[in-house]
This record gives sequence, C-alpha cells and structure tokens, in this order.
Amino acid sequence: MQPLLKVYADRRSQPSRAIIIFCRVNRIDFEEVTVDLFKREHLSPQFKKINPMGQVPAIVDGRFRLFESHAILRYLATVFPGVADHWYPADLFTRAKLEAILDWHHSNLRRGAATFILNTVLAPSLGLPSSPQAAKEAEKVLFRSLRLIESMWLKGNAKFLMGNPQLSIADLSLVCEIMQLEVLSDSERDRILGPHERIRSWVQNVKKATSPHFDEVHELILKAKTRTAAKLGSELSKDLKIASKL
Amino acid sequence: MQPLLKVYADRRSQPSRAIIIFCRVNRIDFEEVTVDLFKREHLSPQFKKINPMGQVPAIVDGRFRLFESHAILRYLATVFPGVADHWYPADLFTRAKLEAILDWHHSNLRRGAATFILNTVLAPSLGLPSSPQAAKEAEKVLFRSLRLIESMWLKGNAKFLMGNPQLSIADLSLVCEIMQLEVLSDSERDRILGPHERIRSWVQNVKKATSPHFDEVHELILKAKTRTAAKLGSELSKDLKIASKL
Repeated sequence: MQPLLKVYADRRSQPSRAIIIFCRVNRIDFEEVTVDLFKREHLSPQFKKINPMGQVPAIVDGRFRLFESHAILRYLATVFPGVADHWYPADLFTRAKLEAILDWHHSNLRRGAATFILNTVLAPSLGLPSSPQAAKEAEKVLFRSLRLIESMWLKGNAKFLMGNPQLSIADLSLVCEIMQLEVLSDSERDRILGPHERIRSWVQNVKKATSPHFDEVHELILKAKTRTAAKLGSELSKDLKIASKL
Repeated sequence: MQPLLKVYADRRSQPSRAIIIFCRVNRIDFEEVTVDLFKREHLSPQFKKINPMGQVPAIVDGRFRLFESHAILRYLATVFPGVADHWYPADLFTRAKLEAILDWHHSNLRRGAATFILNTVLAPSLGLPSSPQAAKEAEKVLFRSLRLIESMWLKGNAKFLMGNPQLSIADLSLVCEIMQLEVLSDSERDRILGPHERIRSWVQNVKKATSPHFDEVHELILKAKTRTAAKLGSELSKDLKIASKL
C-alpha cells in the first residue's frame, strides 16, 4: 500500500533535509517526491497545485496539504503518536521557548547563512554580480547568530539546545541550516565555525542522534561541496542558488 | 496587586503592538513596560537581563521569560484560559495552517515591508544613504506578499485569514505589519494598498474586531505619519528606523 504521506522535497534545500531526516528517524511511513530545483519543477503548474508558494518542502497527508518547514515539523510531531515528546514537548513552557528559537531562526541564522553563501560562493560561480556589501552584512548576521546560539541555548556542556538531553525539531532545523556552510571551501567554513566549538559539538550530537539518516540525507550537499571545491560547477552553483532561496 | 505578566514593548514596533492589542482584547491583566527605542533602552544591560537579544517585545510572566512575538502570542493564547479558541485553534489541521502563515510572515511580508520602508522613507529622512536597489527588491517582495495573502488566504469574501469567521493571532500579527505602511505618504501607501481591496477590507475587519484597542495602540504610529507628512522629523525617522529593526 502506498503511504498516505507524501513529502515534496529537494535535498539541496536545508528545510527539505530536516523534514526527510525527521520522518526517517521517527519511522514515519512516507513517500519522498523529488521536486527538482535544477529543472525548476518547484515553479511548474503541477507543483503549484501542491504548494501555490512554489517552494519545497511541502507535504500532502491524505487530503491535507501544508508548506513551511517549521509548520510541517510541528504537524508531523503532533499527528504521529509514535514521535517522542522531546521532539516537540507538550510542556507549555518548554514548548514556548522552543517556538521562540524556531521564530528567531527565520530572521537571524537563516537570513545570515543563506545571504552569505549566495554572495560569496554562488553568485561568483555563476558569473553573476555579487554584492560584497551584502556578503559583509550577512556575515555579521551569521556570526552574531552563531554567538547567540552558543551563549543563549548551548550554555555549559549542553548537548542540545536549551541544555535538553534529547534533540527537538529546533535542533534539527537549525543544524540543517548550518550544514549548508559545507558548500563553502574548507578554509572558509573553518573560519566561520572554527571559533564556535559548542556549535561544532552540537552539530555532531545532532548527527549522532539521527544516524545514519543525517549523513545519508546530506550526501547530495556534501557531493556539491566536492564539486565546488574542484570548481567544476557553475551549473551546480546555479542549482544551489535556486535551492538557497527555498 | 501588581499583575504577574509584564510586557516589555515600544508601540513603534509592529510586533509590540500586536502583543498589547492581544492582551487588551482578551482582558489579560498585564503591566506595559515601555522600552524606549529612542533612548536605546532595548540595548541597555538592564533590559538585556530580560531579553538577551535586545529586542522588543519580550514578556516576563512570573518566573518565565520569553521573546519573539509569535512565540509570545502562542504562549498567551495557551496559558490564559479565557482566550477564545479562534485566536489559536486547538484543532490540529487549522492550527497547522495557521503556523504556516506565521512562519511565512518572517521571510515575506515582514522582510518586504520593513526593508521597503527603511529604504524609501526612513533613510532619506535621516540623511543616510538609502539603496534604491534594496527598495526595489523589497517592493517586489512586499507586492508579491500582498498578492499571495489575497489569493491564498483571503479568497472570496473572507473576513479573516483562511476564511475564518473570527480572527487569529496570525491576522493580528500580519495586520500590525501592514499598518507600518502608514508612515509612508498617503499617495505612496495608496499606490501599494490601492490595488489590494481584500487586504484593505481585512485590515478594517481586524480593526473592528479589536476595537477600540487597535486604534488606541496605533495612535503613536499614526502621529508619526502626520509628522512625517509635515516633514517635521528626522528625529522621528531615526526612531522609526530603530523600531523597524525590531
């Protein structure tokens, strides 16, 4: 029997990866439908029937359609009874703090990381004009975001955000964002993540807690890194530019 | 007796206004603590103990502290039993759709409106360099956002988002954002909102449903408009620029 849940995704998109990893780790039966950003399938009339915003990820669960990755993660964590409480805690206060992190993500870590990558690696690879000013401003937002995550939510020897012993949908979403930095050169990634030991440990903790799915779902983006490093690919960079908007 | 709930806010900030209106309409007993953005009080060490992010709004409810306006709205709607269900519906599917709108807001309507206002009205009034390119891009995001709200969530004769008969925290949050356009000149605001009849009706519906608190809490921003129109105020514009970052 076909699974009722369909996940429309492209693994080059950070939030797409978060949804796929979440489903896999929680043994949620789903069908992954690739919406190829290379082929601009996210803008096709066919896909716009699924998500009029023309963005991945999106899900169809029986008759129910939904987009926006955080909303999808909340929904999946609530509707599937097998999902452990730590992913999206029912406790009112813990959940409220987690919601604040998810909201904060949009205009801070996500904005910083995506804009920085676009204006440093991707636009130049494409032969398109990049804005050093935009890159500089995005770098500030990115660095500030990483510092704040460490000082606010990874205090002491915190294994996961807010010092929780197990990971939540916020850990998964933010770490998938940080993994996008893998498309940078090693030296550039190290310059950004090097001073942030707690961030690096946290990424490892999320990897371990979601093994082997984390690495498997990130395979495509790690391949992209290899190709970027080898300067093989304006085609790939173009694809990544599209993905980074999602 | 002092109310347990303190709301740290500046009414020049859109999300601050949403929280204050929500509390007033729902007869939640709270103390409004003004964090004066003019005086950069949001960056003071004292306020950073309340919210290390240095942003308004933030709340303290007894021992519990929280920031990010959407997270605060969700929390207040959940913790106060007197808040009617329509604000943040318990129904799993309705709530999921509402979460998608709240998430979408960050990188679409909010990003478009705030960046547009900064690069058209505020920076020039301040004598600071503005970026016509940034304004142009922001205008596109803003127009696209307004179009999508109308076609996705205000279909037909919808009174509120998703055709609901009563408003939700998403209606309140997005409409407070749109009200920030009131700092533009009348002709400029009309150019933007003129073609969007459904948006204009919806704003009126939210006003009515939250009367008289909506107008009262917006008084400061409407005064700002008068002063802007009279070109009285680089001081005010500076204040608004600070507010627009929050």
